[in-house]
Amino acid sequence: MNKNSSNTMALAPNTSNKRQTVCVFGTGDFGRALGHKMIQSGYHVVFGSRSAQTSSLIPKDAEVLSHAEAAQKAAIIIIAIQRQHYNFLTPLAEILQGKVLVDVSNNLKINQYPESNAEYLAQLVPGAKVVKAFNTVSAWALQSGTLDASRQVFVCGDDMEAKQMVMDIARALGLTPLDRGSLLAAQEIENYPLQLFPMWKFPILLSLGLTTFFFFYCLIREVIYAYVYENKDFSFFIAISIPNRICPVLALILLALVYLPGVLAAIIQLYRGTKYRRFPDWLDKWMLCRKQLGLVALAFASLHVLYTLVIPIRSFVRWRISSRTIALALNNKTEPLNTTNAWLSDSYLALGILGFFLFVLLGITSLPSVSNNVNWREFRFVQSKLGYLTLILCTAHTLVYGGNRFLSPSSYRWYLPNAYMLALVVPCIVLVVKFVLVFPCLDKPLTQIRQGWERKPQYSE
Amino acid sequence: MNKNSSNTMALAPNTSNKRQTVCVFGTGDFGRALGHKMIQSGYHVVFGSRSAQTSSLIPKDAEVLSHAEAAQKAAIIIIAIQRQHYNFLTPLAEILQGKVLVDVSNNLKINQYPESNAEYLAQLVPGAKVVKAFNTVSAWALQSGTLDASRQVFVCGDDMEAKQMVMDIARALGLTPLDRGSLLAAQEIENYPLQLFPMWKFPILLSLGLTTFFFFYCLIREVIYAYVYENKDFSFFIAISIPNRICPVLALILLALVYLPGVLAAIIQLYRGTKYRRFPDWLDKWMLCRKQLGLVALAFASLHVLYTLVIPIRSFVRWRISSRTIALALNNKTEPLNTTNAWLSDSYLALGILGFFLFVLLGITSLPSVSNNVNWREFRFVQSKLGYLTLILCTAHTLVYGGNRFLSPSSYRWYLPNAYMLALVVPCIVLVVKFVLVFPCLDKPLTQIRQGWERKPQYSE
Amino acid sequence: MNKNSSNTMALAPNTSNKRQTVCVFGTGDFGRALGHKMIQSGYHVVFGSRSAQTSSLIPKDAEVLSHAEAAQKAAIIIIAIQRQHYNFLTPLAEILQGKVLVDVSNNLKINQYPESNAEYLAQLVPGAKVVKAFNTVSAWALQSGTLDASRQVFVCGDDMEAKQMVMDIARALGLTPLDRGSLLAAQEIENYPLQLFPMWKFPILLSLGLTTFFFFYCLIREVIYAYVYENKDFSFFIAISIPNRICPVLALILLALVYLPGVLAAIIQLYRGTKYRRFPDWLDKWMLCRKQLGLVALAFASLHVLYTLVIPIRSFVRWRISSRTIALALNNKTEPLNTTNAWLSDSYLALGILGFFLFVLLGITSLPSVSNNVNWREFRFVQSKLGYLTLILCTAHTLVYGGNRFLSPSSYRWYLPNAYMLALVVPCIVLVVKFVLVFPCLDKPLTQIRQGWERKPQYSE
Repeated sequence: MNKNSSNTMALAPNTSNKRQTVCVFGTGDFGRALGHKMIQSGYHVVFGSRSAQTSSLIPKDAEVLSHAEAAQKAAIIIIAIQRQHYNFLTPLAEILQGKVLVDVSNNLKINQYPESNAEYLAQLVPGAKVVKAFNTVSAWALQSGTLDASRQVFVCGDDMEAKQMVMDIARALGLTPLDRGSLLAAQEIENYPLQLFPMWKFPILLSLGLTTFFFFYCLIREVIYAYVYENKDFSFFIAISIPNRICPVLALILLALVYLPGVLAAIIQLYRGTKYRRFPDWLDKWMLCRKQLGLVALAFASLHVLYTLVIPIRSFVRWRISSRTIALALNNKTEPLNTTNAWLSDSYLALGILGFFLFVLLGITSLPSVSNNVNWREFRFVQSKLGYLTLILCTAHTLVYGGNRFLSPSSYRWYLPNAYMLALVVPCIVLVVKFVLVFPCLDKPLTQIRQGWERKPQYSE
Repeated sequence: MNKNSSNTMALAPNTSNKRQTVCVFGTGDFGRALGHKMIQSGYHVVFGSRSAQTSSLIPKDAEVLSHAEAAQKAAIIIIAIQRQHYNFLTPLAEILQGKVLVDVSNNLKINQYPESNAEYLAQLVPGAKVVKAFNTVSAWALQSGTLDASRQVFVCGDDMEAKQMVMDIARALGLTPLDRGSLLAAQEIENYPLQLFPMWKFPILLSLGLTTFFFFYCLIREVIYAYVYENKDFSFFIAISIPNRICPVLALILLALVYLPGVLAAIIQLYRGTKYRRFPDWLDKWMLCRKQLGLVALAFASLHVLYTLVIPIRSFVRWRISSRTIALALNNKTEPLNTTNAWLSDSYLALGILGFFLFVLLGITSLPSVSNNVNWREFRFVQSKLGYLTLILCTAHTLVYGGNRFLSPSSYRWYLPNAYMLALVVPCIVLVVKFVLVFPCLDKPLTQIRQGWERKPQYSE
Repeated sequence: MNKNSSNTMALAPNTSNKRQTVCVFGTGDFGRALGHKMIQSGYHVVFGSRSAQTSSLIPKDAEVLSHAEAAQKAAIIIIAIQRQHYNFLTPLAEILQGKVLVDVSNNLKINQYPESNAEYLAQLVPGAKVVKAFNTVSAWALQSGTLDASRQVFVCGDDMEAKQMVMDIARALGLTPLDRGSLLAAQEIENYPLQLFPMWKFPILLSLGLTTFFFFYCLIREVIYAYVYENKDFSFFIAISIPNRICPVLALILLALVYLPGVLAAIIQLYRGTKYRRFPDWLDKWMLCRKQLGLVALAFASLHVLYTLVIPIRSFVRWRISSRTIALALNNKTEPLNTTNAWLSDSYLALGILGFFLFVLLGITSLPSVSNNVNWREFRFVQSKLGYLTLILCTAHTLVYGGNRFLSPSSYRWYLPNAYMLALVVPCIVLVVKFVLVFPCLDKPLTQIRQGWERKPQYSE
């Protein structure tokens, strides 16, 4: 009701687009930025400050008063001070009775305190309605107007009316408020802006490690070997040829690692005869970053495609083809078409194209807006059925690429097999185990276990 | 109010993070999974069960009581039993008075019953506040924590307060509740998890049919013909050459089929002189799956691009080019540049590139998150103007590809024209009719009809 | 309460799926379309009209009454008439007391009137609860069922209960209501459907201008020069060669223009010694369309990639390579591998691939659904760190492409340098200035200024 009446007032001519008085405690950078923005959006802003000293940077149109005076002027008070200083609010408890306190604070570390700042505030001033909001917005973005990622304001609080008032302010500032429920969500909201791609850490570190390993592996096999035995300088292979060996190898290994934990989980469940015991911690974590692993694999696959498609433009490749043609012409020879080679070359390219195509499809369905529009049955169909088909196609692509020189001794240099042969190990294991698990004698008990059946029930005693 | 007070209690030290008591009726797989998850999230869970017998799998921290006893302990009761057994609730009506009943049930078929399960429940227990929720979440996903597509919980119900309480539980479990309005939405929510890409069925079946047809068509023309008349083995064409004929043909036909229904609708409206009569059913259905048709066409176009770009890497193509060069060198000939050929080759490639580029743009704007961010005027501009431009470019690409050998008799084998000539039929018809419809003498009455004008008003009597 | 009771009624057998009576004022195209759709969805619809004359097109199942009679039958009245005729509502004020009036009107121009139509309506009928809704939906889309972009219904209003009722109707019609807050948001909602990519105008006009300039520049250098001096007809360069010069040039320039305003802003802030003064207007506007500039640059980069990858398929290129090979063969020569050329060719391709890859990554993170799922820290990391890395890679790609013929006199035709050399000017300036700004002596004061420090505080007096 409060809100509506103040809005109706806003339409009255004499208030000239001023909507509501909002009080801001704290004249730090964020408080000033928020105050500034609210003044621009037509609010009347009152700052509560310890002294008039620090007020030199405060927007002109704002009033600066003592905390107690400022609090009395507004129904909403934004607490733009750090958690350590919250206890100064205790003496003001009486004035703050029934007011909406907006906690905008952030911490320096994830889970820095046992309870969230907003819950701590609610304990300090039990009579006030505490709402957590605005902590995901940066002061700089607020002031420069370059809001993009930060348009979202997570709001939580126990009082619906208070939450609505804060969400209306957020909308007036051009932000998108998102209700996250009761004050219990504050901890999560406070942790949110501190994260830097937490789910991506493991996949990226893993792929960096594997990239380094395969880079030196290929460097030895392709560049140093040729230099030592044939005294040829193939150092320029570092630019394209070696990356184009690393990328497909990593794409295949990482894609197989997406499906390995599911296979392991099935084995563990079959062995234990129940689904009601937790998986080992490492397996849980692994399962949670499968999407990220898959997307990193897709990135490597895309690079592989680009590296492969520029092959005919490379100066080295043009030179090699032209040299061979000239040599044949000078020797008066014409080669007949080798149908086996044509078959092998065309099939591994076709398998690669189809595999990559399905892989991109998987990537698109993992976009948030797409995966939110499919139901669980559809998502599982895409991620599981199409995912395994992709893995099969990519593994076949690599196998056919090896083709007839697969186990020929000439492909071993210093006893090192070609990199793609190493890449085949994990995907082949995954596919073989998955193939075994599909047999009815294993599939049936597994399905039962997943539906809740237990070989020896444990909670029975 | 209830909710807030229990939340405040949650912060009191002696309740140690226990928030609320939730009752679960039914100890089946889903009930147990949900109960387990709620216990993990800090709720106190009471199971209501017919007997203590079935309770062996129930999470340790949960209480198991009779239905009546369990119901009295909580304000929220989750009905995790099948619709057929709902009538056991009738005797409990008095105890359930004023309680929030959460219907989590799913059916086996779409529209299995005349009214939704939730509405049936509301009729059985008129005094309770029925909320439909959680049916889109799978028990397995809940327990294994691998929630991705299933994070969304559609919630509907007639009581706002009750809905809020259920939505808070969903949020506490790490799910995303979405308010779908009153209990009348329950039918739709119950049908949702049973769908498997319903809109994609027709486009995919159609493209499978066309693919099969064109595969055998090209097989006869390219492989069998060469084998019969020239005794050459071009069977490896199956891997890349033939797919690269099928893909562009299907992309073009399907793209034209996206715009054909709009053209047909315009003709029907012009003929009838009104827009107030329903289109034939097949046309309505066709119009509704245009987006999916377009995306399947885009998939074929993307495959065509990939198949085309690997051409120079193919062993067969390298052999063919090298053979020709050697033959010329051995005959001491140098060919002059054929400017017409250069023009034709460059133009059809350029047209193809631009057409594909616009096609991808159309695909991107049909992503849910992008199309939600454009208004209707922008969407129509992209889908209609850019769409027709794409169709024109792709048709021109195919026409110029034919180039000077378009009607030469040598391109007919066994009286069969080249596949791309068949592909041109539908797009050319669409473009010609659209071109005719753009003329003012037809465009003006059509616009009037679409604005509501009628040649002979029918509702007048 | 009203809503719930009517819903309960809806389940009673005798009302046969009729939910609620909705009144529609105005029998124009939109009113009829909305009425029709509501009848289909089970509502009882009463039209309010000046006369029975205009009612010939009105859906059969609807009643048509005088305004006053119709208004009395329903709690919700949809005002489907134009703003100019709103004053006819003044005499009805008494009947409209307490009713929900839904303003669905649109204007012809952005900000046509000083206050929004909905606010004007609220002033005319102060006793009614005005809700703005449905203006983003088109009558045609409503009736033909082809809702896609237009599924979103922005709703705003000062009365929560009234807003809920309107949002329930929207949901019943298969639309997605979005609460935009109080009636003050009506102006924005009314402007929304009038926009046609407002943020894209500047980037697209700029790139069209640059494209035209570079087209004629390249035409003179590549085609006319060759025709005048060597009398060769290279007019077919217009199809691929010249676009493939324009696209990378524009991609690089536009990408640099994305980062130039940030650099300028930093210089201005350093010079002024404060962040509290507004930037010049052109800089503000420039900063707001950086995302669009970047996406246009990405479009050009994608076209460049496609144009480059088809190079080996071009008839002209095949002829040129084959001619050179034949010439070498006829002269009995075999060229040795030029390692420097191999290095240059491979490095510029590799730099281009990596640059394009990062560029696509930036593009993906700017998809609304992706950028909504990252926090501000992550977004800045991607857009700033990865963005500059992309710019560095693309600039290096162009520099290495120039390679050893960078300043050779032969690359000047009619004193005109190659187009890529012109393209390097802006990115090099941006990178050099950014490099200077990273030095601690400038970075430190800049960081302080951005945290709110001022060299000479201005608000102090």
